[in-house]
Amino acid sequence: MSHTIQRHHTSARMSKIARFGDLIFLCGQTSSGTPFADVASQTREVLGRIDALLAEVGSQRSRILSATIHLKSMADFAAMNASWESWLAGAAAPARTTVQAKLASDSLLVEITIIAAA
Amino acid sequence: MSHTIQRHHTSARMSKIARFGDLIFLCGQTSSGTPFADVASQTREVLGRIDALLAEVGSQRSRILSATIHLKSMADFAAMNASWESWLAGAAAPARTTVQAKLASDSLLVEITIIAAA
Amino acid sequence: MSHTIQRHHTSARMSKIARFGDLIFLCGQTSSGTPFADVASQTREVLGRIDALLAEVGSQRSRILSATIHLKSMADFAAMNASWESWLAGAAAPARTTVQAKLASDSLLVEITIIAAA
Repeated sequence: MSHTIQRHHTSARMSKIARFGDLIFLCGQTSSGTPFADVASQTREVLGRIDALLAEVGSQRSRILSATIHLKSMADFAAMNASWESWLAGAAAPARTTVQAKLASDSLLVEITIIAAA
Repeated sequence: MSHTIQRHHTSARMSKIARFGDLIFLCGQTSSGTPFADVASQTREVLGRIDALLAEVGSQRSRILSATIHLKSMADFAAMNASWESWLAGAAAPARTTVQAKLASDSLLVEITIIAAA
Repeated sequence: MSHTIQRHHTSARMSKIARFGDLIFLCGQTSSGTPFADVASQTREVLGRIDALLAEVGSQRSRILSATIHLKSMADFAAMNASWESWLAGAAAPARTTVQAKLASDSLLVEITIIAAA
């Protein structure tokens, strides 16, 4: 008998959270895309959203297993890493992959996809 | 003692399905790459393949946990979403990430990678 | 009561391995980026690193569930596949997705992200 899937913030297109047993999948998190926001502030906004979503299902940043980071421009790698490492400080870091990719809107500079443990 | 991994449609390069316990990993699904097929029809073909693969292991579209969508051109975002949402109608939506990336062949416009629950 | 997460090679930025229950997440593996190394040799180096990391947690290439391959240029697809298939020989192949993406450094031609079973 298989576990139930728990979903949160579900639209016709996607759920922001899908939980199955002890595994939590978040949809790719971006900033709100405010024009002129740089990658440091967009990364901080993304990480704040991840904190909030994980908290909803009783998890937290120290329980992240895997992070896939898509950057609009690899020129932003160092600035994104500075925001990322500042955020992680005191929490054990997950496995991570970072590549360059164009995101859904031109104003978006960074998108982070998380798999976490409950 | 660890679970057995069940694989289906295994070639020297990849398996279309790898199942481990209650988790199902599908290889990235593309259309057959018929020239001149637009993204709406390619997306429908991809989603039909996902239905068929999930059915082989007793799962279904309402059991998808995570979808990673690579689009050759983000200009196809709205058309892909229309096919996607039409397909999901009546099934709870998974976590999802969509980014732009060049795919293995120039004729391919969309590739979808699924993690699902049994 | 949730499982403990085991991490290995953890820096301020990431862990090379995050294990949760029977699931193992590796950070994206690249070669050391030696200038002028072609994709065949970079792929072999990447796969050797994956072997070593999996061995640390009692897993192996035949226990890989999912591989996400980012290639700097899809022109390298055939050469990467030749190294990949040569490496897999005798081990059952995982689910796999391959797309083109610029990687963190210009000298890197291929990055492979693995989810494996313990």
